[in-house]
Amino acid sequence: MSAQRNNPVAVGVDLGGTTFRVGLITREGELLTQQEYPTPRSDDEPAALHAAAAAVEGVLESEAVKADRVAGVGMGIPGPVDPESGTIRQCPNLHELDGVNATELMSQATGTPAYIGNDAYCATLAELRYGAGRDVANLVMLTLGTGVGGGIALDNEVRRGPRQIMGEVGHLIVEPDGPRCGCGNHGCLEALVGRDRMVDYAIRLLEQGRASSLGERAGPRHEQLTPRVIAEAAQGGDELALEVMARTGYYVGVAICDCIVLCDPDLILIGGGIAGAGQLLLEPIRRTVRHRSMISGFDVSRIVAAELGNEAGMYGAAALVWEGSAEG
Amino acid sequence: MSAQRNNPVAVGVDLGGTTFRVGLITREGELLTQQEYPTPRSDDEPAALHAAAAAVEGVLESEAVKADRVAGVGMGIPGPVDPESGTIRQCPNLHELDGVNATELMSQATGTPAYIGNDAYCATLAELRYGAGRDVANLVMLTLGTGVGGGIALDNEVRRGPRQIMGEVGHLIVEPDGPRCGCGNHGCLEALVGRDRMVDYAIRLLEQGRASSLGERAGPRHEQLTPRVIAEAAQGGDELALEVMARTGYYVGVAICDCIVLCDPDLILIGGGIAGAGQLLLEPIRRTVRHRSMISGFDVSRIVAAELGNEAGMYGAAALVWEGSAEG
Repeated sequence: MSAQRNNPVAVGVDLGGTTFRVGLITREGELLTQQEYPTPRSDDEPAALHAAAAAVEGVLESEAVKADRVAGVGMGIPGPVDPESGTIRQCPNLHELDGVNATELMSQATGTPAYIGNDAYCATLAELRYGAGRDVANLVMLTLGTGVGGGIALDNEVRRGPRQIMGEVGHLIVEPDGPRCGCGNHGCLEALVGRDRMVDYAIRLLEQGRASSLGERAGPRHEQLTPRVIAEAAQGGDELALEVMARTGYYVGVAICDCIVLCDPDLILIGGGIAGAGQLLLEPIRRTVRHRSMISGFDVSRIVAAELGNEAGMYGAAALVWEGSAEG
Repeated sequence: MSAQRNNPVAVGVDLGGTTFRVGLITREGELLTQQEYPTPRSDDEPAALHAAAAAVEGVLESEAVKADRVAGVGMGIPGPVDPESGTIRQCPNLHELDGVNATELMSQATGTPAYIGNDAYCATLAELRYGAGRDVANLVMLTLGTGVGGGIALDNEVRRGPRQIMGEVGHLIVEPDGPRCGCGNHGCLEALVGRDRMVDYAIRLLEQGRASSLGERAGPRHEQLTPRVIAEAAQGGDELALEVMARTGYYVGVAICDCIVLCDPDLILIGGGIAGAGQLLLEPIRRTVRHRSMISGFDVSRIVAAELGNEAGMYGAAALVWEGSAEG
């Protein structure tokens, strides 16, 4: 422990709309400690960033980390950021942070270099450096949650492109005449497999009078129906639930075929809450890609679950420090 | 002219299944001379490469280019190549070249360094260095011809990925339940807008009894119907022909939306024979992207025609020499 106590550490902050996490992480990806806090809101000041700065100081103090051991603080932000200036462009769930220079605020409060990145960027970077992608140089990550996010790594670097759009896999078109997406397009992956769309599809099947164990579990107005409940029912062999998983896997598989021909990845990672369904989701994804992606000969066993789960954002934020530069 | 006569030159060879071109091109992209030759076939030797080597020597001799002015010979190959070894992996239209080390053969025959690249790679490189993309660093090119090829440039480099699949835009899925593609998938862009598919669609509309000037021009068994004839009829205001162009533009537009979210390009180039239709094709492409790509705010005036036409392969082959390395 004494050698470890002299190793430099990075602080990773994963800022979410409801809670934020702070962790101390070494360059090798060892998590020394982590804490979770509620995210405070305010109408007229960046309360979340002030709270994050205070939490960083608190963690460093309670762990007795000397200032000269701290390589910097990295923050993952749930919205687009400006990689050059360290400014938060837009934060849909924390509007009071719009336009705030987060790195200036954090570095002044803590006296250490600060870096910010978009949360999808951070999660992809975390898997590339410390997670399921640590042995490859080229990967595509799809994060299936309330929405569908993602990221692309090429030659061992996560890329966002000149307008920070690169890797927005949730807006690949998988059903051109499909339902309208929040983005204005039709049939985007997010419009077909986001959390609510998965639940809506299960409800539609239930309302057709299909027999399913979900009928009981859903509650009178289906308010108990979540992707997790559907995945559990599928694990128990429920046919309706299996159909929901198969449909989700199909659409994700179609999107992955597009990722293969445009990005030529070594590995494809599935992360986010819905990915907790494991093989029940991976199997229909792989089946779709196997049938549709013959020309590329892509080995579908290279479609795997992400490893870092809810901690990916925090690991990736710390990794920003080691990369030594702010990124989109 | 005397200064120019001392400038170093690269030889660009664009090897096609029917003809090949040889050109002398400066580093700045000035074409000093070019020649076109029939491509010889043979069952048991790489006759096309021997002919290309002889043609290179002939052009250098007739232009009185001293050996020390020649920076090297670059060759564009219609099939996958091995960027490391200079070997042609597979050449579907010239099977006798399969597995031949083309750079070794060419450099021994001409006494100058030789480089090879895939033809789609070369065409993209040509537009990036000398054509419509010379002022940007990130572009996607779609080449609409008999098939649909393409390429991707990021940070001013054409990328092919570890398996040389990156940029195969012809196999983006634009209609998941659409017709079977030669690759085994369904609804690939190539299965919907390749040359034959465009003609097939026009024939289908004609056979429905639709009035069109194409009825007369097509010939008794529609054998006169080509994308060029369709484009000419569209220019004359023929509604059936305009519908064929609109459908082609729609599918290309859907594919471009996927390219935007995965690659974040500064510019999108449309090349190949069908692209000769100009605004008649660009307009429905832009309309589709404008309606579908709101989230990215992509400026559809950045979807433009490629500039180098049939000479792109030759320019790109010469550019391989200046890049100084063989590429996929």
